[in-house]
Amino acid sequence: MATILMLNGPNLGLLGLREPAIYGHDTLEDVEAACRDALQGTGHELDAFQTDHEGAMLERVHAARQDADAVVINAGAWTHTSIALLDALSAFEGPVVEVHISQVHRREAFRHHSYVSARADAVIVGCGVQGYEFAVLRVARLLD
Amino acid sequence: MATILMLNGPNLGLLGLREPAIYGHDTLEDVEAACRDALQGTGHELDAFQTDHEGAMLERVHAARQDADAVVINAGAWTHTSIALLDALSAFEGPVVEVHISQVHRREAFRHHSYVSARADAVIVGCGVQGYEFAVLRVARLLD
Amino acid sequence: MATILMLNGPNLGLLGLREPAIYGHDTLEDVEAACRDALQGTGHELDAFQTDHEGAMLERVHAARQDADAVVINAGAWTHTSIALLDALSAFEGPVVEVHISQVHRREAFRHHSYVSARADAVIVGCGVQGYEFAVLRVARLLD
Amino acid sequence: MATILMLNGPNLGLLGLREPAIYGHDTLEDVEAACRDALQGTGHELDAFQTDHEGAMLERVHAARQDADAVVINAGAWTHTSIALLDALSAFEGPVVEVHISQVHRREAFRHHSYVSARADAVIVGCGVQGYEFAVLRVARLLD
Amino acid sequence: MATILMLNGPNLGLLGLREPAIYGHDTLEDVEAACRDALQGTGHELDAFQTDHEGAMLERVHAARQDADAVVINAGAWTHTSIALLDALSAFEGPVVEVHISQVHRREAFRHHSYVSARADAVIVGCGVQGYEFAVLRVARLLD
Amino acid sequence: MATILMLNGPNLGLLGLREPAIYGHDTLEDVEAACRDALQGTGHELDAFQTDHEGAMLERVHAARQDADAVVINAGAWTHTSIALLDALSAFEGPVVEVHISQVHRREAFRHHSYVSARADAVIVGCGVQGYEFAVLRVARLLD
Amino acid sequence: MATILMLNGPNLGLLGLREPAIYGHDTLEDVEAACRDALQGTGHELDAFQTDHEGAMLERVHAARQDADAVVINAGAWTHTSIALLDALSAFEGPVVEVHISQVHRREAFRHHSYVSARADAVIVGCGVQGYEFAVLRVARLLD
Amino acid sequence: MATILMLNGPNLGLLGLREPAIYGHDTLEDVEAACRDALQGTGHELDAFQTDHEGAMLERVHAARQDADAVVINAGAWTHTSIALLDALSAFEGPVVEVHISQVHRREAFRHHSYVSARADAVIVGCGVQGYEFAVLRVARLLD
Amino acid sequence: MATILMLNGPNLGLLGLREPAIYGHDTLEDVEAACRDALQGTGHELDAFQTDHEGAMLERVHAARQDADAVVINAGAWTHTSIALLDALSAFEGPVVEVHISQVHRREAFRHHSYVSARADAVIVGCGVQGYEFAVLRVARLLD
Amino acid sequence: MATILMLNGPNLGLLGLREPAIYGHDTLEDVEAACRDALQGTGHELDAFQTDHEGAMLERVHAARQDADAVVINAGAWTHTSIALLDALSAFEGPVVEVHISQVHRREAFRHHSYVSARADAVIVGCGVQGYEFAVLRVARLLD
Amino acid sequence: MATILMLNGPNLGLLGLREPAIYGHDTLEDVEAACRDALQGTGHELDAFQTDHEGAMLERVHAARQDADAVVINAGAWTHTSIALLDALSAFEGPVVEVHISQVHRREAFRHHSYVSARADAVIVGCGVQGYEFAVLRVARLLD
Amino acid sequence: MATILMLNGPNLGLLGLREPAIYGHDTLEDVEAACRDALQGTGHELDAFQTDHEGAMLERVHAARQDADAVVINAGAWTHTSIALLDALSAFEGPVVEVHISQVHRREAFRHHSYVSARADAVIVGCGVQGYEFAVLRVARLLD
Repeated sequence: MATILMLNGPNLGLLGLREPAIYGHDTLEDVEAACRDALQGTGHELDAFQTDHEGAMLERVHAARQDADAVVINAGAWTHTSIALLDALSAFEGPVVEVHISQVHRREAFRHHSYVSARADAVIVGCGVQGYEFAVLRVARLLD
Repeated sequence: MATILMLNGPNLGLLGLREPAIYGHDTLEDVEAACRDALQGTGHELDAFQTDHEGAMLERVHAARQDADAVVINAGAWTHTSIALLDALSAFEGPVVEVHISQVHRREAFRHHSYVSARADAVIVGCGVQGYEFAVLRVARLLD
Repeated sequence: MATILMLNGPNLGLLGLREPAIYGHDTLEDVEAACRDALQGTGHELDAFQTDHEGAMLERVHAARQDADAVVINAGAWTHTSIALLDALSAFEGPVVEVHISQVHRREAFRHHSYVSARADAVIVGCGVQGYEFAVLRVARLLD
Repeated sequence: MATILMLNGPNLGLLGLREPAIYGHDTLEDVEAACRDALQGTGHELDAFQTDHEGAMLERVHAARQDADAVVINAGAWTHTSIALLDALSAFEGPVVEVHISQVHRREAFRHHSYVSARADAVIVGCGVQGYEFAVLRVARLLD
Repeated sequence: MATILMLNGPNLGLLGLREPAIYGHDTLEDVEAACRDALQGTGHELDAFQTDHEGAMLERVHAARQDADAVVINAGAWTHTSIALLDALSAFEGPVVEVHISQVHRREAFRHHSYVSARADAVIVGCGVQGYEFAVLRVARLLD
Repeated sequence: MATILMLNGPNLGLLGLREPAIYGHDTLEDVEAACRDALQGTGHELDAFQTDHEGAMLERVHAARQDADAVVINAGAWTHTSIALLDALSAFEGPVVEVHISQVHRREAFRHHSYVSARADAVIVGCGVQGYEFAVLRVARLLD
Repeated sequence: MATILMLNGPNLGLLGLREPAIYGHDTLEDVEAACRDALQGTGHELDAFQTDHEGAMLERVHAARQDADAVVINAGAWTHTSIALLDALSAFEGPVVEVHISQVHRREAFRHHSYVSARADAVIVGCGVQGYEFAVLRVARLLD
Repeated sequence: MATILMLNGPNLGLLGLREPAIYGHDTLEDVEAACRDALQGTGHELDAFQTDHEGAMLERVHAARQDADAVVINAGAWTHTSIALLDALSAFEGPVVEVHISQVHRREAFRHHSYVSARADAVIVGCGVQGYEFAVLRVARLLD
Repeated sequence: MATILMLNGPNLGLLGLREPAIYGHDTLEDVEAACRDALQGTGHELDAFQTDHEGAMLERVHAARQDADAVVINAGAWTHTSIALLDALSAFEGPVVEVHISQVHRREAFRHHSYVSARADAVIVGCGVQGYEFAVLRVARLLD
Repeated sequence: MATILMLNGPNLGLLGLREPAIYGHDTLEDVEAACRDALQGTGHELDAFQTDHEGAMLERVHAARQDADAVVINAGAWTHTSIALLDALSAFEGPVVEVHISQVHRREAFRHHSYVSARADAVIVGCGVQGYEFAVLRVARLLD
Repeated sequence: MATILMLNGPNLGLLGLREPAIYGHDTLEDVEAACRDALQGTGHELDAFQTDHEGAMLERVHAARQDADAVVINAGAWTHTSIALLDALSAFEGPVVEVHISQVHRREAFRHHSYVSARADAVIVGCGVQGYEFAVLRVARLLD
Repeated sequence: MATILMLNGPNLGLLGLREPAIYGHDTLEDVEAACRDALQGTGHELDAFQTDHEGAMLERVHAARQDADAVVINAGAWTHTSIALLDALSAFEGPVVEVHISQVHRREAFRHHSYVSARADAVIVGCGVQGYEFAVLRVARLLD
């Protein structure tokens, strides 16, 4: 049995509250529940973490070297700006899947480049909250 | 019951044969079978089409205005070069999900931009053949 | 008496059907009829061809070296991508007038550059279907 | 009955005199006469203005808010440099058609971008003096 | 007692008339009155000038070397294109404050760069007509 | 009565201490006092917050959705780098005014672009500490 | 004994007919004959294919995986635009030599970049029809 | 005997008054006198014109087609922005020499490009007022 | 006797653990020990600080204005993204030496630009852990 | 009988010694011998020159105006940087063929642009030492 | 009495021989004679040096620190590539005037940028051989 | 015992003489002496070479393949322009350390890119003459 770590970055604690036309009405708790459902029967378990502090995120990724087998990450705005996060993920050796709730390629140009993609094994964009389910299922297959 | 049209562009007829280190060993027939399995119980059916001729692809998309409810498309190399395909998809009104088998963001720079993404409702990258399954499931949810 | 060849590229077979807010309600047949009206009394005749296949378009332009005296062309999306079409038109020696139904300069940036313009003697943009009439009249004057 | 204002920018007072290989032998007076002919029977009348002073052009456009229903404009070199002219035209509410006598897309790169195009409803390029006729006819149709 | 010169560039004579959704309903006269109110008690007086002629603006700035102590300027579209205006302001030695009524950074990209900013001591953007009041108050403090 | 939240980003706690040639001698406490004076009689009150931690700033903006009506922000260096801050401000619905003490457009090129400006209703640059006073007055008027 | 496949892309069927100042007077048949002469005594044979349809070219390259040992290709205008052709050639495992009849580096800038060069083992430019002979000789040596 | 027309653009009426560290202490009258001295014995005469109005400059260049044989021009800031001036000079057929008093290549980057240079037969930069003397001498030789 | 503050940024707490092919096997403790050895006999002492939190790093630099005489800094990924760190270092008045363990100029392009270099007095790249020793020796000489 | 001058630039004296995986095992002497063999029966003779001094290369090209009829040149790294070499070759009037041993278009981006190509009549890339033979044969045909 | 050093760079030894349509028929000796004539009566003398070796040019500039008071330089193609020459000239303290015989701004784009201009006190372009005379006269005035 | 070759490029023969504010008062001889001191006890010896001729530098690097074990190089201005030097260093197999006396990243933008860095194992910038000592010490450790 493996542990999948689901990471959410800045402003994602407001999920379901802010700009629902873009991000929908599900909260992070709903997302976690849906992912746990999706993992039913795979034998894998989910651990979840959200923060608005980049330093805390880096430390969580460092810890994942010990306590997680795979990472599903929505890095929010850090996707486009944080080389530090890329470096931290590069020091993690399991599979990494990147998720974006909205279709970022149809938004501002500065959201089209992702530092996380330079490390991610897969990228899932614009599937809303269902994208997280796909990500954990992808990770589950890679772990098998 | 809705019809989901799965479209594959140039060179994808060689799937499973060429460069397996990048694209894996599954053939297009395997992909179709997996997608039909994934649609089991949703009440939706799958129609599939592959071509190396851009004109034939455009005509197939035109026809989809009459005979399909949603499109899942891996446009292969046309992803990066075909504005004509973008225009054809823009004249189609149902949901569109874009798939890439490999993690294109980790390959050459000219594979990082997609004209299809300007129209797609979702984009799934680097999940291998499983990405097609996610795409039809996403489309199924959007159709419900 | 001269022959004017009117060429229409990809997706233009849907004229009058797709995105009428941008392209209007006239069909290609309506366009041809209007152009034939405009040519009344000039002694010139109109030949028309539409295709979604770039190869077929190239072959039609090659044939025009024998069977046409002037070209009016709306190359659709190939306008922005097809150097092959530019090369084919460069091997044709009569007048060439480029037409765009919509005002492409007010749309996406990738529609602002035209390979066809590097060969065209005149360019008519955003006059809707009336633009074709202007084009055949311009060609008629150049042929006289 | 509507009034169509034909505006010509810097150096166009020399039309017919300078560089006839590029601009032809017709003078501005010839252009006006041809446009009045073209408007025969439409019930619309033509008003014409040429200046080498950008400020005078801006004031003429301002006045057009009161005394004109449509604008046909060849802004000459200001086409490529004058945001002020774009702003003035944006405060005018009737149709605007942009004209260039020569095929500017085959000249120097700095002549390829037009600020006026960001406001114009149509653009007619490289039709020589006939382009003005097309422009007033286009405007006439839009006014009907 | 010092004289503050308020300069307004092209199209600003239409203030209150054109595009009120962007520029509001106050006229230039209202702006002048508000600025004179704001200067009450400072002992400074206001002189105002608007023109659509760049040459006239340059001459007014030249004269300011003799008859003004500070400049508040909304250069309109010249902001983005007139190096000549920058040169004229550079020959003026008192404080210069730049004003824009609308939030130019949220409009077209060509409105994001300002030649005037290379000379201005302060820049006030998107405060509507109140921005002029802030500008004269800033200048008043700098003159004290 | 409304609450205006004044936010100051990294290094601004040193205001009055570091590089006085650029930033002047007033401290943040002086700034707050001046703003409270400026708000005298408007019926609005001021709340102030400074931090060198981006995560803390994001959380403060999130909280502002409940406890503030408007934001005045000097994001310091994050102005140019933090998309996360832009996203947080975009989830806030009241007026936002951006302030910079120095004239950033006359400093290094990397200080010319602001992510905050993509959300701000107004921008005040180079007015020194007085810029904060203008900002709260602007916000006060927008709230009325 | 090996088979060398000589591929020619769009508009090259007109060789010897169009723009002889650039492309000379030899036809494709002359080119084939010259190449067969050059291969005399090497024990290798030549197979030749020309098309204006990109899809047909892709399918021919796919087939080459079974029926050819090396490829000599003049992709014409697709050289600069077709990532699909690059992908097809990448799935072929024998030597590939790229030929251009004219000296493309002295023509328009858009002819300076080649997608085919990213796969080709050698590139021969501006040697006219003789360039094909060099190409088959190079391939012959690589096959030995 | 020929007439040499010396043209000076915006802000140059202040020569000798503004920024003497850059432009020196000679006035335009001093420049004219020095040029007349330099022409002593050549049999050529000098005509001089300065304006801050671009339209007036264009009209003066138009008139030069009748009343001047050569042009020496310091276009000031229009050097970098006025395509209209380039067009007007292109319609003049005699020799054109461009002068800049200061060494513009060592000033801001936006002063490094000159539209006038696209027409000028010679360019003299950074020789101070002496540069005008060189220019009239060059023109004198070209006229002989 | 002076105090040299050695600062290490994000992910550097993993030194010796992550990607040893790039960063080697020495830990931060080993680095500190080596630096203290290098300072033997210079009379200077070393203070060391590592954090994954940018805010904490900024506060530590602020404090250095009181408790340190020089800074040796390996800012890790912030090197390329943190203008805030540049601003903080600019408010520190002693010598600053920048260190990178790996040869960053031979890695990805986004690691080639350093904001820290805009403030640093010296830069030492690719010397592995020995680079820290060189940095403290350089600082020691500058302090003498 | 004509003289063909074969020129080799910097580092090519090491041919056969350095990086044989890229450049092969043949020495310059081997190359010369192969070219002389290729010229057997053409009646043309070969002269060869190699230098690591750009100045010496320029002088040799100058002398070629008297003592050579054609040039075959591998300019090595000067290919990408030496405008002086381009100027010298432009003063030579016979045919010029450019050779590169390795396939430069598949190496670093800075090797993709060639100043020599702006003058060369043909370019042969990636054919190893055989490329020199092709070059002298091409030149022989051009001389006939 | 001062010594003016006239320096000419690569390929300029061919002056009068190569491409006379661009460079004229005067040789370097003619140029020197004309400059000595121009200096008649100024009391200054001329020293001249030409080389195709960049290193020799650098050494000559180094020596000029001892044996020359001013430099007139036509750096030929090094103008656009040699930072070393810029550095050498920067170590020379007298006046430097840059000369180009042809009007380089009307030639290829890579001839528009000059490293020498970053150091030169004046630049004279397109005056043919007369430009050298102007340059020595300018230098003579600066020396007085 | 190994031999370390210290190479210095153009203008560095003036070290200690030119611009001491930037480069200090030590001469190259002083630098060599300091490096020999630093190598005391390591058993390694130093060989030194300076030239203003790029060709001579290339030949010295070629020779180093036989007579040196490591290289310390300050390539001066060639750092930014010489691909030939990069190629020569690439053919050398021992360690290479790049040195710059001044902090080049704080000087002109064209000094920020180094071709040498694409080969160097370490880079030491802005440590003055002490940087050479660090370089030989680094090389000494790499050789052990």
